[in-house]
Amino acid sequence: MAVNLSAPIAAELKPVKGIRLATASAGIKKPGRQDVVLIELAPGSHTAGVYTRNAFCAAPVLVARQHQTQSTTRFLLINSGNANAGTGDAGLVAAKACCEAVAKIGQCDANTVLPFSTGVIGQPLPVDKITTVLPEAFNQLKADNWLNAAHAIMTTDTIPKARSVELSLNGQQITLTGIAKGSGMIRPDMATMLSYIATDAAISTSVLQAMLEISMEQSFNSITVDGDTSTNDACILMATGQAANPLIDDINAADAQQFLTALNELSRFLAQAIVRDGEGATKFISIDVQQGADVDECQQVAYTIAHSPLVKTALFASDPNWGRILAAVGRSGLPNLDLSKIAIYLDTVCIVDGGQPASDYTEEKGQQVMSQSEITIQVKLGRGDAAKTVWTCDFSYDYVKINAEYRT
Amino acid sequence: MAVNLSAPIAAELKPVKGIRLATASAGIKKPGRQDVVLIELAPGSHTAGVYTRNAFCAAPVLVARQHQTQSTTRFLLINSGNANAGTGDAGLVAAKACCEAVAKIGQCDANTVLPFSTGVIGQPLPVDKITTVLPEAFNQLKADNWLNAAHAIMTTDTIPKARSVELSLNGQQITLTGIAKGSGMIRPDMATMLSYIATDAAISTSVLQAMLEISMEQSFNSITVDGDTSTNDACILMATGQAANPLIDDINAADAQQFLTALNELSRFLAQAIVRDGEGATKFISIDVQQGADVDECQQVAYTIAHSPLVKTALFASDPNWGRILAAVGRSGLPNLDLSKIAIYLDTVCIVDGGQPASDYTEEKGQQVMSQSEITIQVKLGRGDAAKTVWTCDFSYDYVKINAEYRT
Repeated sequence: MAVNLSAPIAAELKPVKGIRLATASAGIKKPGRQDVVLIELAPGSHTAGVYTRNAFCAAPVLVARQHQTQSTTRFLLINSGNANAGTGDAGLVAAKACCEAVAKIGQCDANTVLPFSTGVIGQPLPVDKITTVLPEAFNQLKADNWLNAAHAIMTTDTIPKARSVELSLNGQQITLTGIAKGSGMIRPDMATMLSYIATDAAISTSVLQAMLEISMEQSFNSITVDGDTSTNDACILMATGQAANPLIDDINAADAQQFLTALNELSRFLAQAIVRDGEGATKFISIDVQQGADVDECQQVAYTIAHSPLVKTALFASDPNWGRILAAVGRSGLPNLDLSKIAIYLDTVCIVDGGQPASDYTEEKGQQVMSQSEITIQVKLGRGDAAKTVWTCDFSYDYVKINAEYRT
Repeated sequence: MAVNLSAPIAAELKPVKGIRLATASAGIKKPGRQDVVLIELAPGSHTAGVYTRNAFCAAPVLVARQHQTQSTTRFLLINSGNANAGTGDAGLVAAKACCEAVAKIGQCDANTVLPFSTGVIGQPLPVDKITTVLPEAFNQLKADNWLNAAHAIMTTDTIPKARSVELSLNGQQITLTGIAKGSGMIRPDMATMLSYIATDAAISTSVLQAMLEISMEQSFNSITVDGDTSTNDACILMATGQAANPLIDDINAADAQQFLTALNELSRFLAQAIVRDGEGATKFISIDVQQGADVDECQQVAYTIAHSPLVKTALFASDPNWGRILAAVGRSGLPNLDLSKIAIYLDTVCIVDGGQPASDYTEEKGQQVMSQSEITIQVKLGRGDAAKTVWTCDFSYDYVKINAEYRT
């Protein structure tokens, strides 16, 4: 049951010139389910990527990161149902074998293929099942296949996550379309589990990478479901250059900034969609920390609140047990925190002012906010001008149920 | 349902010469329940204390810390049902009023009284209810009241936590008896929610404080239920000096080390009892990180595993989903982690060796360990000789239930 998030409509997802997609059913975890996605990029496309910082990162992450530096990407191969993580050297061999199989049919080098996997950790990737369906996938490649791709990368997600944004650059119509998946093991340290965003704009590789990193900070790097950074996080931004706009090669130029605004909108939507569909989520929570000395300390306070099981269970219960928010701020580890300058709000209801319980707070006012499906927790630190917002969800019986039964 | 923990028997709890205790029913949260404890220390007793490092610490913590430095403690007054935290200046006034009421009957100064509170955060302390029952409490003071005291400080605890340890120092029989409470909001940053340990040994104040801090590190500072450091943590060690042993005033002396061993045993028992009775706990987990460069990094890895909702729900489900342990090690943030040196075990079953999946691991072996009620997760980092063990519990439906319904 996702929070205020409905499935995208196929017609709303705009094809991106130079990108074709296909899905196939390899029966990796469950028979009959579409679990393989192939994405083809037209020659001349540029790509940018960000990957998990988990030291135990999965084999496909290691291979994709290497291939991206070695060559110009022509294909992305993604599977769900198996993360090919914790699989050691055999996992690397498996990921490379998948790339080679794509390269053989696509008549290109194996290092022009980026592999991605998501699903259960620690089980051998069934390479044969995947390579068997590749010929069929190549036959199915088409431009208007984004919704099917969004479906096929899902694991515990209940709703596919996809969106298109359009803008005009120097008179040229530009399209961005992106998909994402992720529902648990979400506390991206760089990107979320998996997200693929494509545009037909012409953008140089270095500017594309810079834009992706900027955009990540205000989207996938600002969400958490359970604080568990995945072994498989990856986000890839593709630019085919087929929109005939003048090449964007200066991130400070007006068209670059225009594009970045659109990219930010898209990536933030996808990141928030992951939280809205967080495992067992019944509420969407914005944690807005202001007046910090720097962004890092704002983020530290925000994540301490966002990861507190006690805050998250109170949110689930619609219980205005605001003492738990206060306790989380107090244990967040900021040096020399001056309580007398701290204010805390639930939406616009002040609960703490100048470090003291707000005199006009009533349980009724708190209850009203906590009963909503979307809640903002605002903390003012009184230490400076920096601010940071992170998004999270509550912690319900269903989170435990989903994760206790994940492999059954 | 606590894990392999049964209620102590009153006869097993040895009186400590110079300590008398009483309980009373003030009806703070629920009518009829014993919710006030008064502890009297004989003149000449020494005390040591450690308190929460949560910046939003409760009013009684501020007052107790101050009183302990100002005077020689004669009384401890503890209430459950209300934490007197997040209550601002009014909370300080309330805590001091309680001390003054005790001082009046006890004919001593208010700063010889240490106040402690545990329970709901953010509600005014009902001072009148507490002071009303004080005369009765003074009448009830007796030496063999430890079990009643352990009961009266409970909140969501299902079992009282108490134990006695005896030893002989230079031919003198020495007794240590301690009680503790705590079940949720447990990730002590100094001491647990509340613990009181008394001995009749003669120990100087400075050595007593040093012993308490050493003992905390291997007990209350090595446990976590949910990662939420409380606003009210406090642990008080009392030494009445009535056992007639020669005064211990050198921590390196043989008798000091003998006493410390006994204190460590008692505090570790009480700390582990808190985890065994952790909210919703069905399993008791030891996380044993070895071969670290220093203790801090071992602790960092141990707590990352101990706080992972995914690891904790897999433990609840008895699911040997060891990829989640591996992912937690990977995201724990150690610089330059060399995966090829890492080994991970479930009890004696190796799951990762040299960074690779262990060749002789089978799902059956993993399942057998995960089905136990007590499990050790051992991680070898291959970086040095330091080690650290922390204790935690699993994460069940009942944790969510208890914390969603806590105030109802």
